[in-house]
Amino acid sequence: MRIGVDVGGTKTLAVAVDDGGRVVATELRATGRGADAVLDGIVAVVDALARGRRVDDLGVGVPGQIGRDGVVRHALNLGIANLDLAAALASRVGLPVAVDNDVRAGAVGAAAMLPDVGSLAYLNLGTGVAAGIVRDGMPWPGARGAAGEIGHLSVDPAGPVCPCGQRGCIEALAGGAAVAARWGGVSALPVVDVFDAADAGDPRAVALRAEVVRGVTAAVQLLVLTADVEVVVLGGGVSHLGERLFAPVRTNLRAAASGSGFLASLDLAGRVVPVPEGVPVGALGAALLAGSPVGVSGP
Amino acid sequence: MRIGVDVGGTKTLAVAVDDGGRVVATELRATGRGADAVLDGIVAVVDALARGRRVDDLGVGVPGQIGRDGVVRHALNLGIANLDLAAALASRVGLPVAVDNDVRAGAVGAAAMLPDVGSLAYLNLGTGVAAGIVRDGMPWPGARGAAGEIGHLSVDPAGPVCPCGQRGCIEALAGGAAVAARWGGVSALPVVDVFDAADAGDPRAVALRAEVVRGVTAAVQLLVLTADVEVVVLGGGVSHLGERLFAPVRTNLRAAASGSGFLASLDLAGRVVPVPEGVPVGALGAALLAGSPVGVSGP
Repeated sequence: MRIGVDVGGTKTLAVAVDDGGRVVATELRATGRGADAVLDGIVAVVDALARGRRVDDLGVGVPGQIGRDGVVRHALNLGIANLDLAAALASRVGLPVAVDNDVRAGAVGAAAMLPDVGSLAYLNLGTGVAAGIVRDGMPWPGARGAAGEIGHLSVDPAGPVCPCGQRGCIEALAGGAAVAARWGGVSALPVVDVFDAADAGDPRAVALRAEVVRGVTAAVQLLVLTADVEVVVLGGGVSHLGERLFAPVRTNLRAAASGSGFLASLDLAGRVVPVPEGVPVGALGAALLAGSPVGVSGP
Repeated sequence: MRIGVDVGGTKTLAVAVDDGGRVVATELRATGRGADAVLDGIVAVVDALARGRRVDDLGVGVPGQIGRDGVVRHALNLGIANLDLAAALASRVGLPVAVDNDVRAGAVGAAAMLPDVGSLAYLNLGTGVAAGIVRDGMPWPGARGAAGEIGHLSVDPAGPVCPCGQRGCIEALAGGAAVAARWGGVSALPVVDVFDAADAGDPRAVALRAEVVRGVTAAVQLLVLTADVEVVVLGGGVSHLGERLFAPVRTNLRAAASGSGFLASLDLAGRVVPVPEGVPVGALGAALLAGSPVGVSGP
């Protein structure tokens, strides 16, 4: 039995996964802020799931940059600047601990749901925008752990200003935080509010919705035309818009490819798939990253 | 001994490579148009290099889409729509023949020159713009052979119209054919003419030069932030501009990263390296792709 934990900015979700890769139990609690609170939250959900189960390994997915040494850096939404999470957790739960980036863990979880797919990108549409890439069933961090970090690629020099200092970054167009900042007001699901208002005819919302669709479309294009993954799995809070988001993205992808036999032959629109409904891909992927990669799907 | 052939739109360059991966002889001739002329040209350079040498394998790099079956499709500059080049050549030269995309072959050749680099993208700046990716010393075609096909990713919705139908594609900004079309006049090196005119103060040339630099900068950014290659090797005809092109690209990369600790930590500017002077990376890579991958460098 393995436990996988997905530490999000607001909630910490843990799953217990059997040797067949099936989720047999889940545990959810709010995420605290700062290293100690985050650690306590992970230990609490692990203790709850471990009760009455033989647990061999623990895997944790967290936002931020994760070094090969398991040290978490720049996890700003967690209030963590630098933390050796693997070591700190191992000493408290007495298990071997694997730590990876939460989006890469999500990619591994998504790959487990798509056993016939050899390579995929998991595009996480949340507060920010980033992708994790899986090849042959294994996460692919790249040379410096930046593979799939497409949020701050600019696709419009005249686009909205991004906190990174550039304009028209994919995250500035389609990231939940950026959309919320431009839309104003307080909401748990700002992008959903924008889509609702756009449906109701609000011209500002219509413009913001078009930017979100443009950002997601660009993200799919560059993931396929650079890393040439078979499939781009759309997940994260914004993806709960479902076809309200996916349909116009596919329409944009077909329109962009309509003038090129080469682009059309790549069928970008056909490679877009939503994350399977109700599957906690982040926590599942974290569990599959724990211990041996057995159970992680591949071609 | 292996022979590698780089079939370009204007010239066909072949090299003989010994078992140590060293180029021991080269042969150059103009490329004909159409399947028969291209085949005759390849056979001619192979015959010339094979004279007095024991040749075991032949590798050929050609533009266009190359299927795993060795069939060349959409090689428009060669006037080839569909040709089983591997089979046609094997029957004429009596050698095992490996065929791959010319840019991917260039990436393998560049990797052989950088034996300490585990992953790289070879960004070919020529009539068009495309990249080939090498990981662990082996070419990485992606799921459908489109890995590194970044030429038609748009980075400016208000940018110049691209023949593909989109606006602001990287190839529309930095491709030799696109620059020549906007600059006008007939020249073997239109991009060099533009840089010369820009140096002389021509405002139209200054604007075109800025677009070229912007396109190359965007190409480096998305290759690193999507595929996270250790190094981006700049090659192709336009790369002969050398530091006149590379210096402003590095300056742009540093400026784009200056507002983000994360982007700055990735040191994109430091990952840009020119193709080694005088090395026929395309033909060398084609030779290394021939037969066993022995000789292809890796970590």
